Amino acid sequence: MKKRIQKITPRFFRKISHKKGLPPGALVHVGEAKVEEVKLWLISFDEQSFSEKEVSFSDLSEGNQNISWVNINGLHDTSAIKEIGNVYDLHPLVLEDIVNTAHRPKIEFFENYIYLVIKMLSYEPERGLISEQVSFVCGSNYVLSFQEREGDVFEGIRERLRKGTTKIRSKGADYLFYALVDAVVDHYFAVLEGLGERLEQLEEDVDFRPDEKVGNLLYDLRRNVLFVRKSILPVRELLGHLEREESKLVSGDLKPYWRDIYDHVIQITDGVEALRELTSSIREMLMTQLSNRMNNVMKVLTIIATIFIPITFLAGVYGMNFKHMPELEWTYGYLVIWIVFVGMTLGLILFFRKKKWL
Amino acid sequence: MKKRIQKITPRFFRKISHKKGLPPGALVHVGEAKVEEVKLWLISFDEQSFSEKEVSFSDLSEGNQNISWVNINGLHDTSAIKEIGNVYDLHPLVLEDIVNTAHRPKIEFFENYIYLVIKMLSYEPERGLISEQVSFVCGSNYVLSFQEREGDVFEGIRERLRKGTTKIRSKGADYLFYALVDAVVDHYFAVLEGLGERLEQLEEDVDFRPDEKVGNLLYDLRRNVLFVRKSILPVRELLGHLEREESKLVSGDLKPYWRDIYDHVIQITDGVEALRELTSSIREMLMTQLSNRMNNVMKVLTIIATIFIPITFLAGVYGMNFKHMPELEWTYGYLVIWIVFVGMTLGLILFFRKKKWL
Amino acid sequence: MKKRIQKITPRFFRKISHKKGLPPGALVHVGEAKVEEVKLWLISFDEQSFSEKEVSFSDLSEGNQNISWVNINGLHDTSAIKEIGNVYDLHPLVLEDIVNTAHRPKIEFFENYIYLVIKMLSYEPERGLISEQVSFVCGSNYVLSFQEREGDVFEGIRERLRKGTTKIRSKGADYLFYALVDAVVDHYFAVLEGLGERLEQLEEDVDFRPDEKVGNLLYDLRRNVLFVRKSILPVRELLGHLEREESKLVSGDLKPYWRDIYDHVIQITDGVEALRELTSSIREMLMTQLSNRMNNVMKVLTIIATIFIPITFLAGVYGMNFKHMPELEWTYGYLVIWIVFVGMTLGLILFFRKKKWL
Amino acid sequence: MKKRIQKITPRFFRKISHKKGLPPGALVHVGEAKVEEVKLWLISFDEQSFSEKEVSFSDLSEGNQNISWVNINGLHDTSAIKEIGNVYDLHPLVLEDIVNTAHRPKIEFFENYIYLVIKMLSYEPERGLISEQVSFVCGSNYVLSFQEREGDVFEGIRERLRKGTTKIRSKGADYLFYALVDAVVDHYFAVLEGLGERLEQLEEDVDFRPDEKVGNLLYDLRRNVLFVRKSILPVRELLGHLEREESKLVSGDLKPYWRDIYDHVIQITDGVEALRELTSSIREMLMTQLSNRMNNVMKVLTIIATIFIPITFLAGVYGMNFKHMPELEWTYGYLVIWIVFVGMTLGLILFFRKKKWL
Amino acid sequence: MKKRIQKITPRFFRKISHKKGLPPGALVHVGEAKVEEVKLWLISFDEQSFSEKEVSFSDLSEGNQNISWVNINGLHDTSAIKEIGNVYDLHPLVLEDIVNTAHRPKIEFFENYIYLVIKMLSYEPERGLISEQVSFVCGSNYVLSFQEREGDVFEGIRERLRKGTTKIRSKGADYLFYALVDAVVDHYFAVLEGLGERLEQLEEDVDFRPDEKVGNLLYDLRRNVLFVRKSILPVRELLGHLEREESKLVSGDLKPYWRDIYDHVIQITDGVEALRELTSSIREMLMTQLSNRMNNVMKVLTIIATIFIPITFLAGVYGMNFKHMPELEWTYGYLVIWIVFVGMTLGLILFFRKKKWL
Repeated sequence: MKKRIQKITPRFFRKISHKKGLPPGALVHVGEAKVEEVKLWLISFDEQSFSEKEVSFSDLSEGNQNISWVNINGLHDTSAIKEIGNVYDLHPLVLEDIVNTAHRPKIEFFENYIYLVIKMLSYEPERGLISEQVSFVCGSNYVLSFQEREGDVFEGIRERLRKGTTKIRSKGADYLFYALVDAVVDHYFAVLEGLGERLEQLEEDVDFRPDEKVGNLLYDLRRNVLFVRKSILPVRELLGHLEREESKLVSGDLKPYWRDIYDHVIQITDGVEALRELTSSIREMLMTQLSNRMNNVMKVLTIIATIFIPITFLAGVYGMNFKHMPELEWTYGYLVIWIVFVGMTLGLILFFRKKKWL
Repeated sequence: MKKRIQKITPRFFRKISHKKGLPPGALVHVGEAKVEEVKLWLISFDEQSFSEKEVSFSDLSEGNQNISWVNINGLHDTSAIKEIGNVYDLHPLVLEDIVNTAHRPKIEFFENYIYLVIKMLSYEPERGLISEQVSFVCGSNYVLSFQEREGDVFEGIRERLRKGTTKIRSKGADYLFYALVDAVVDHYFAVLEGLGERLEQLEEDVDFRPDEKVGNLLYDLRRNVLFVRKSILPVRELLGHLEREESKLVSGDLKPYWRDIYDHVIQITDGVEALRELTSSIREMLMTQLSNRMNNVMKVLTIIATIFIPITFLAGVYGMNFKHMPELEWTYGYLVIWIVFVGMTLGLILFFRKKKWL
Repeated sequence: MKKRIQKITPRFFRKISHKKGLPPGALVHVGEAKVEEVKLWLISFDEQSFSEKEVSFSDLSEGNQNISWVNINGLHDTSAIKEIGNVYDLHPLVLEDIVNTAHRPKIEFFENYIYLVIKMLSYEPERGLISEQVSFVCGSNYVLSFQEREGDVFEGIRERLRKGTTKIRSKGADYLFYALVDAVVDHYFAVLEGLGERLEQLEEDVDFRPDEKVGNLLYDLRRNVLFVRKSILPVRELLGHLEREESKLVSGDLKPYWRDIYDHVIQITDGVEALRELTSSIREMLMTQLSNRMNNVMKVLTIIATIFIPITFLAGVYGMNFKHMPELEWTYGYLVIWIVFVGMTLGLILFFRKKKWL
Repeated sequence: MKKRIQKITPRFFRKISHKKGLPPGALVHVGEAKVEEVKLWLISFDEQSFSEKEVSFSDLSEGNQNISWVNINGLHDTSAIKEIGNVYDLHPLVLEDIVNTAHRPKIEFFENYIYLVIKMLSYEPERGLISEQVSFVCGSNYVLSFQEREGDVFEGIRERLRKGTTKIRSKGADYLFYALVDAVVDHYFAVLEGLGERLEQLEEDVDFRPDEKVGNLLYDLRRNVLFVRKSILPVRELLGHLEREESKLVSGDLKPYWRDIYDHVIQITDGVEALRELTSSIREMLMTQLSNRMNNVMKVLTIIATIFIPITFLAGVYGMNFKHMPELEWTYGYLVIWIVFVGMTLGLILFFRKKKWL
Repeated sequence: MKKRIQKITPRFFRKISHKKGLPPGALVHVGEAKVEEVKLWLISFDEQSFSEKEVSFSDLSEGNQNISWVNINGLHDTSAIKEIGNVYDLHPLVLEDIVNTAHRPKIEFFENYIYLVIKMLSYEPERGLISEQVSFVCGSNYVLSFQEREGDVFEGIRERLRKGTTKIRSKGADYLFYALVDAVVDHYFAVLEGLGERLEQLEEDVDFRPDEKVGNLLYDLRRNVLFVRKSILPVRELLGHLEREESKLVSGDLKPYWRDIYDHVIQITDGVEALRELTSSIREMLMTQLSNRMNNVMKVLTIIATIFIPITFLAGVYGMNFKHMPELEWTYGYLVIWIVFVGMTLGLILFFRKKKWL
């Protein structure tokens, strides 16, 4: 029994308990400490103009005519986050939630902005399930996106922004916000497909080689599915909120678009439930296969033992050294005993045939 | 362990992730790419007149006195779908949903039309479960039906339309729409029956030959049942919507008819749940049977071993070559040892009788 | 493994798919085709008068001063049902539901009558669970009851009607309707008791003879319980409807009586759930028993094998024909080897005692 | 496998089907028929006076200045119950419910009284779970309590009534009613504790002696827990009714007291669910233990067999009687073969060590 | 099978039944009786002043300008609790709940104070899960906290109070109340992490050494998880109450803070559910591993037995003492039989290879 090569399940429980004892609103980064610097990438655009550059904190200011999208990579530097919070006048509890990377997906509506935290998931066959927390702050003319590390699912959106004539350039910050959430949610489909394919592959393995490697892999995939479920379930509810909530920050003609994301999330949760049922079904089939195998092994053993044990006994009998054993003296004794051996064997084979063991 | 002859389960997860990165409203066909041309079949009728012909896009126009039913076969040609969308002034997100053949059943009410997407299921013993997505668009005097491929469950309705005196000829587009949905839902009963019959057959097999073939078949059927469930569950909810929604497109005196379909769908979901419970019960019985079999195999082995091991030992004893073994010299030694053999065997048989193993 | 003597489970899925393709409202009898004629039995009464006779269709008419109860046996003759529908002016969809004997229990309120369809269940130890569909139509001064075949649970009510002084004679059609439904529901208790008794009997069997016969019987009973559950669950909901609905056809002072039936149905559903849990518990106990048995069988085998295998080996050793085997020459060699045999055996028995296997 | 000494589960299904066919409101005693006489015990009190005596039916009358509590023991004499019903003007359906001792807990509000039926449970280690039905009727100045047999949980209340200065003497019939229900509910805690203790004891047994006795006991306890659950669950709902309902019979300042009972019942249902989970967990552990045991037994068998089978074969080889077997002639042949025996044994033991079987 | 070293599960059911028979409002301490004295620790502060001292009952009085926090350690002395109740004018039922340490978490709003009871949990690897009940009473200018014993999770709050400039000093009693509840809830995360880590450790063990020790530990951890769940689930609901309830005791600008705790509790309940699923998954993997192991053990046994049983038989045959056994006389007989032995062994090894058993 060798160690599984790769632990593909993200940890369910991050260390967030070192926060206890601190006052509410204290910024504590929950996650692995990193040394890289926090990076800010500012995209500023309206229908005519477009600019894209790395900026520092001092370059940020809320009062801007253009729509601006500030992407922040890295949440470990709490003082940097606090500075951003000051610029955009964010509530201390919001900042606390942003740096707590173990947060449950949720949405909150404030006077001047909407705060949304969500999981960005991706699945790569060789690396497994990767989960990162993204927080969005959507104001009247800006969107902030906070990521744990570099690399995201927003490249398509950047492309569309760079092109001058796309719809996204002519719409407001709320449409950008929608587009970003849409990109995250669309990526969930890829995760489902990745897990689904791996499970269907496993299905074949259960059929042909039901051993502990399969059991372990199934276990890991099940944990993956449960992790995805835990990440996606609250999203449904929070998008429901977003649809119902009347906020001046979300224009009415975006409603069908949010409704569309909501439909996708329902479809995804359906898919996750289907995957969950699939892992259960596969596990049940694995158990059935193991029982079947055991039955087959036992049958072979029983057949062999049942055929040979009696005739071995007989051979033992005629190996005894009693003085007076008339059979031993017979001319055809040895022949007769072979006939008996063969006869008993055939008889037992017929018996097993009748019992459908052969 | 041979490969299962036929993989009867439709894929749970279609490739729809290649959509990610595209702007919302982009038409991406999800499904197998096909080369056949998209076919339009127009039936146009009122109480007096009736015409039926294959048409091209240019023949379509909304402004028609008669009720018209346009059936579109093939969704892979997204430009064709877009053209139809232009003629009937459909929302881009609706067109996106029509070509996404992995969509969840849903209904949407627009100003001028109702959009409904649903799964058309059929079950054939030798081909297994077949699933196809149908989208309906019901306007004031037209119904559009979008299918993935040729072959559907609407032949009966075409027959009724061709006959001059049927109710369906004297009613509006909403009644035609109802009749089409009714035909799809009525077909679910056939699927349930097909699966039910196969399960009842399997039930017998579990009784008489509980082996891995049965386990695999059960597994496939269970996946089929879950697939049907996943397809049907949302239909209930959307028909509820249809009943409650006040739309000028659905006349009030059709309400009892929609209520009737709704009743059918509830009955079907009851049936699916029953099938689900049935697969669980059969699996449990299979496991019990396997345990029983194992017990029986073990009993045979134990009986044979327990009877022969001790007397084989005794035969071994008298096969030893010690110089001084008084029993070997006895005149009736050989007879006595046979009496001991038979006596021990009978004693053990009685013991097993008492233990109810024989 | 012999065939189970009696298949006591009613079929979950009746053939109703041959309806597909027909227009809604088409009368299609679902069930076994029968050749017997449809029989109408009319009881007509008021507080003073009482008459009871078999009638033909032409004798029926709605306009009658007395309360009349028409019981129709046999639903296979759809033209007969249609005639009755004409007399009492029933909606085509109601007639369709009446002849569809696979219908889910439901209630519908019309202007001039209430339509209720329900399952009449009975349980006989030797015949198993028997299910029949009854439809009631309750008008202002008549009650129609449609049954699949002769034989019902209404004999007590007929008796009470024949006696002049009973409450039922002085009340209206709604009270008769209530009394009929009450009779059907009261009979569910008998079904629960029958199944409960059989399960408690099975409980004993699991204890003493856990074999495949018990497994099969348990499986059949579980299917019976699920069938009853499926038949009864919707009744609760429809009686709730009946209580809430304001209908001029149900007088207010009957409310406590309907409430009473409702209480009974809740008690019955509690009972069905208890039976369901009981079957699960029994199955679990059966599996535990099977595991226990297996353990016991394995223990016997292991004890026998472990005791005899080593000493059989030793006997084999001294049966070897090496030239130079000093032990064989010893005077007490044979005695010593027997002491070794007995000693090893006793040692192993003590070892098994310590392990609590003996 | 001996018969379990004591059947500690009360019957789930009492014979109540002999009622079918009777008109509604007919009094049918459900339960064991008894010959004892029905006993009435009247306690009459106000703040100043107190009297306590056995009475007959004729002594009862509603019109009394004092608060009176009539306790009726024995429900088998339906005519007696009917007489009491006449005195206090109770609805026929209430009387029917009182004598039906298989009734589900429920509450009903009438013009002049409240009717409540509930289960009085107690648990004694040597007798098991005992269940009795109590019905309360609470009028403006009287409380009736109907019990199946002598012996109840109200002794503490009687004591408090006898003492002149207790709160209960200065309050009305509604407070007495509350105190009686409170006594019944408080007793549920004792039942939970009794079952909980027995289960914790069983837990130990599963650890040390997982055999069929443990399985059976667990099964019985599980049925007990389910029975308690079935009895308690409806109580929660009916107390909720009592809290919400505006009745002139329950004074407003008793609300916190009813709220308190409601809290207790919620705590009890939590406890019952915990017990249910506990039985499941114990069963799972039992199954794991059985599997473990089986594994251990199999390991012993396999180790013994695997060590001895090959060397027994070798001994058999040198017991063959071939003319030309050179090894037999060697001077150290016997020594060599013993070295081989010991060597193989040690090798296999090392192999098993590596496999962690030893 | 040795006794588990440590029983890490707190008792599910505390003795609270000795209360039965007492009048409502009677103070009965539920828990272990202790001899220590009840200790009161008073912290009194406003923005400027701060004092902290142990006090006696007589020092307490409600009429104080400062905010005061009285922490009471020890609930076994019911008379002391009653005295405190008198000082702060608490309802008798509240006092009853305070001393009943087996109470379910709940909240109650009174005219002058809020009463909240909650579980304070902590988890230490070597001591296991520790649970203590805390009751809070929050008045307009005081907070009372009742603990079962010394040692709590409030040290951080005391530190913040001692520092002059913290927010908590400038706010009212309601903020202190919030901070205390927040400290309790924050500690739940640590419990989840502790359990989660232990489960992840167990996961490894299941992989490498699936034996009864693992089974027992898993069982204990599962009970721990269920206990935590039982303690935390009601908290969610009661915080929901707190948020909705309009009370003059909770100022409006604290709403976001209570909302924050509520979010945490939801996250914690998610975590508990995840742990519950994890225990189930681990148990399933354990069962799979046990089945796998069994299969492997059986395979070894079967391979050894199947290879040696036939050739041992053959050796036995040529050990027979028949007069006429031609093979024995052959010059190469012994060689031939060895060739047969080796040939059969190789053949069987190939057969097992093909069956994938080797």
